[in-house]
Amino acid sequence: MSENNLNAILLFTCADQDGIVAKISQFIYNGGGNIIDLDEHVNQNQKFFSIRVVWSMKNFSIPSSQLRDAFDVIGKEFNAHWRIEFSERKMRLAIFVSKYDHCLQEILWRYKMDEYHIEIPLIISNHPDLQKLAEANGIPFHLFPISKENKPDQEAREIALMKENNIDLIVLARYMQVLTPEFIQEYRNNIINIHHSFLPGFVGGNPYKQAYERGVKIIGATSHYVTEELDEGPIIEQDIMRITHKDTIKDLIRKGRDLERTVLARALLYKAEHRIIVDGKRTIVFN
Amino acid sequence: MSENNLNAILLFTCADQDGIVAKISQFIYNGGGNIIDLDEHVNQNQKFFSIRVVWSMKNFSIPSSQLRDAFDVIGKEFNAHWRIEFSERKMRLAIFVSKYDHCLQEILWRYKMDEYHIEIPLIISNHPDLQKLAEANGIPFHLFPISKENKPDQEAREIALMKENNIDLIVLARYMQVLTPEFIQEYRNNIINIHHSFLPGFVGGNPYKQAYERGVKIIGATSHYVTEELDEGPIIEQDIMRITHKDTIKDLIRKGRDLERTVLARALLYKAEHRIIVDGKRTIVFN
Amino acid sequence: MSENNLNAILLFTCADQDGIVAKISQFIYNGGGNIIDLDEHVNQNQKFFSIRVVWSMKNFSIPSSQLRDAFDVIGKEFNAHWRIEFSERKMRLAIFVSKYDHCLQEILWRYKMDEYHIEIPLIISNHPDLQKLAEANGIPFHLFPISKENKPDQEAREIALMKENNIDLIVLARYMQVLTPEFIQEYRNNIINIHHSFLPGFVGGNPYKQAYERGVKIIGATSHYVTEELDEGPIIEQDIMRITHKDTIKDLIRKGRDLERTVLARALLYKAEHRIIVDGKRTIVFN
Amino acid sequence: MSENNLNAILLFTCADQDGIVAKISQFIYNGGGNIIDLDEHVNQNQKFFSIRVVWSMKNFSIPSSQLRDAFDVIGKEFNAHWRIEFSERKMRLAIFVSKYDHCLQEILWRYKMDEYHIEIPLIISNHPDLQKLAEANGIPFHLFPISKENKPDQEAREIALMKENNIDLIVLARYMQVLTPEFIQEYRNNIINIHHSFLPGFVGGNPYKQAYERGVKIIGATSHYVTEELDEGPIIEQDIMRITHKDTIKDLIRKGRDLERTVLARALLYKAEHRIIVDGKRTIVFN
Repeated sequence: MSENNLNAILLFTCADQDGIVAKISQFIYNGGGNIIDLDEHVNQNQKFFSIRVVWSMKNFSIPSSQLRDAFDVIGKEFNAHWRIEFSERKMRLAIFVSKYDHCLQEILWRYKMDEYHIEIPLIISNHPDLQKLAEANGIPFHLFPISKENKPDQEAREIALMKENNIDLIVLARYMQVLTPEFIQEYRNNIINIHHSFLPGFVGGNPYKQAYERGVKIIGATSHYVTEELDEGPIIEQDIMRITHKDTIKDLIRKGRDLERTVLARALLYKAEHRIIVDGKRTIVFN
Repeated sequence: MSENNLNAILLFTCADQDGIVAKISQFIYNGGGNIIDLDEHVNQNQKFFSIRVVWSMKNFSIPSSQLRDAFDVIGKEFNAHWRIEFSERKMRLAIFVSKYDHCLQEILWRYKMDEYHIEIPLIISNHPDLQKLAEANGIPFHLFPISKENKPDQEAREIALMKENNIDLIVLARYMQVLTPEFIQEYRNNIINIHHSFLPGFVGGNPYKQAYERGVKIIGATSHYVTEELDEGPIIEQDIMRITHKDTIKDLIRKGRDLERTVLARALLYKAEHRIIVDGKRTIVFN
Repeated sequence: MSENNLNAILLFTCADQDGIVAKISQFIYNGGGNIIDLDEHVNQNQKFFSIRVVWSMKNFSIPSSQLRDAFDVIGKEFNAHWRIEFSERKMRLAIFVSKYDHCLQEILWRYKMDEYHIEIPLIISNHPDLQKLAEANGIPFHLFPISKENKPDQEAREIALMKENNIDLIVLARYMQVLTPEFIQEYRNNIINIHHSFLPGFVGGNPYKQAYERGVKIIGATSHYVTEELDEGPIIEQDIMRITHKDTIKDLIRKGRDLERTVLARALLYKAEHRIIVDGKRTIVFN
Repeated sequence: MSENNLNAILLFTCADQDGIVAKISQFIYNGGGNIIDLDEHVNQNQKFFSIRVVWSMKNFSIPSSQLRDAFDVIGKEFNAHWRIEFSERKMRLAIFVSKYDHCLQEILWRYKMDEYHIEIPLIISNHPDLQKLAEANGIPFHLFPISKENKPDQEAREIALMKENNIDLIVLARYMQVLTPEFIQEYRNNIINIHHSFLPGFVGGNPYKQAYERGVKIIGATSHYVTEELDEGPIIEQDIMRITHKDTIKDLIRKGRDLERTVLARALLYKAEHRIIVDGKRTIVFN
């Protein structure tokens, strides 16, 4: 396999110490790699070191199949959390939807435009409404109706289906069901949701109605990782839009759709480009 | 008195009915007034009518001193809440401060630039820190140290001082004291606060610390009327700024200062130009 | 025909005079109409009056078929430019495209979501690339390849086709051909273009390359009416996005697509809701 | 001298080659330095390498006085443009003004708030208007009235004065005079201007009038380095603000003041924190 156009992407955090950048960059240089992009920062209050490094594997002496093992020495030395990703390897994404199509449309269009370096082997839904849209885009659509009673079973079947398909990443594109802790545990830090408010404002249901009634002058949308606490997961991206007293709840919903699309699309891009590290309740987004 | 450059500004709300605009504009036309700016809207869900009309009093047959009485017939006919303001009449503003100078500086600079059509007869503070700044701008500074025990008394003295000075409007420019319900009642819908978060997110103390810990990607500031419930009054204006994982709480405070200045300055402008109607928990801002 | 849910929309400009609002609102009141939204402004420097009024035709004594004749008296009295539109009447839109699909996709999605009160009877292109997309959306696609030699003939055939289809409005959704003055004349103030720069910066071809080379920190997009002078028509809407030194021209093109979609979509909404008046080189957008 | 709180800041560009980061970080590690912040990027089209590294000099074996000599080996090896700055060393800024005070006020306020790590030994003006403001802030004010005839002489005296005061950096805070090429040459890449438009739109005089007449929907401001070509220097920072048809030229000027203040303040911050590299007509801003 030629690794001519292959890049390696290292994401690495640890307690701050001297010499980390030197060790990492020496490792890359020794192998014959060329660093293309590097962003490092030390949180001075918490003495917390974080880095993202991208280097070209062209001419690199260690093949990508052995790279993680080779790097592990450095990871251990600094007692770091780290992972290495490869640019050629496409993340495999499952999109969960219910009835709204706007976020799904947006992702599928960008997917077709090749904005994301991902594969989308399947779309999962608890409603049949978006089957036609999925199929028009050539993506298998799997219907799992959810009731209070069947949720654990259906989720188990969803997980089995995703495992068969080697799914890495789940995007909830306005999926209107709360996931069980068991499901979340299975894809920890790999489930991205879009919430239609500027979190932490207006948690839960009907955020546009809440926003209207509170009389805010700006509405927002928030993309975040899903955790066991509703709308409390680490935030990846947010954006906002101005409204006025002339806007009805219906206008907020319409305007908000544009926000939701944009914010979720950006969050997915950051994830697909391996730009995100979860750090407790917060994320580090290198961009 | 020549009323050549005088404008009248009508703010008017009521349950929606036919013929309101016709009646109001006929009234102005009959008097020989020229409408300069008019913004009307009916909230179709609540059948709630709101309007702001500005007209030139040059050539108007009814002198400004008798205008409110003359207009009262229309107000009564439609069972409206309304008020008429005059562009020549400068609102009289008291600024309340504590230790931070940025919002005060901003208002004083705009005041000197004549951006606001207001008078600032006095600055009130519970700390002596900003006395020099007030006086360098030629504005009397009144110190009212506040303790739990003396708050009602001190507030009573503040109110007395403001009444002597015919104060219409109070701006809390990072004033670090909660006002009593009695004080708020005295200046209902005439006390404007700046809160250093994107409300309703991060109510109460230390919002930048809260924002940092929640890991938001955008911080905000909110200017609102003060009511008895902390940070729950009708919102006048909001704005936001992007942050990243590299920003410390100190950076948030620094960046947030710019937001606070801007948002409070805009809210005060809207108030000074008589562009705001309070409608329950919400505001109508004509701009 | 029931006119229960029908609104009339008046757009009206003239040299400023007393009594215009009174006359217009009296006219509406006399007919039994209820004003839903009214926005009026006098440009004080140019003494230029402009107004947009929306009223309900439910209970209106003059049927919509006779309304323009009835209103003409007022138009003449004030020597005004005016038009009346009706909310039930859907504007008939022709979309012109070449090879890029993003603006077309965006409009078709919003069309399907019923965001616009329009009909799209046809799509015209000088390239076959987007035929499938058009047809998947059930809209007839007409191919008119353009060369220097055949342009006048092809345009004549396009115009004939549009007249057959009662087209009111043309959107150039990244249509990569300059229109002849004859074509423009035929649809004066009814051809909306999207230019992929923040006009007046970077007129003409390759604006993202120009932007990259100039080293701007923000890119933009501009939607404007097409006039005989390239990229000089009255601007309807603009928006911007931040870029950094890490962005390549390819990144600018990718990010710019999002801007182009949004800005063109908004411009079309304003047009479809009859919110725009052209005033020389400028537009008045009531929103 | 204790170097406990001292940071070194390296800015470095060259043609891309393998091993640059390794060499630089090894150099820092060998000396006992701790890297706090590092941002590196290779422009893949132009094979152009750029980096900014900040490291703590606490425990560093090479004293700051010898650091540049020691590093020169690496600079030479990669044939790089580079410089090293020290966080303790305050840049010495001269502010040039004419009659408008808003940009000066803004800088002085932030200076007092300690937002910038700079010294301001003097303010230079061609008009006496802002003398009082300068002196109220305790900064010597030097008046150099400029006419066509005396400009070279006056500039020579200004330069002499600045040399006496060890000035590193000049900010033109709405200074209304074009500088001569000789002057610019003397402070190449160290003169920052604020232009009151979104460059490259509306170059030259009266940009707000130009913007008004063109009918743009958004106005901007641009901070850039001064070069011999008017308003053509490398752009450091830009920002924008929405306007409507109700805004007069006077409103644009008022709103624009806020933009000018903000944009110039940010550009100065980037410069003071040594975040800018000039790369031909473009800048790299690490932030």
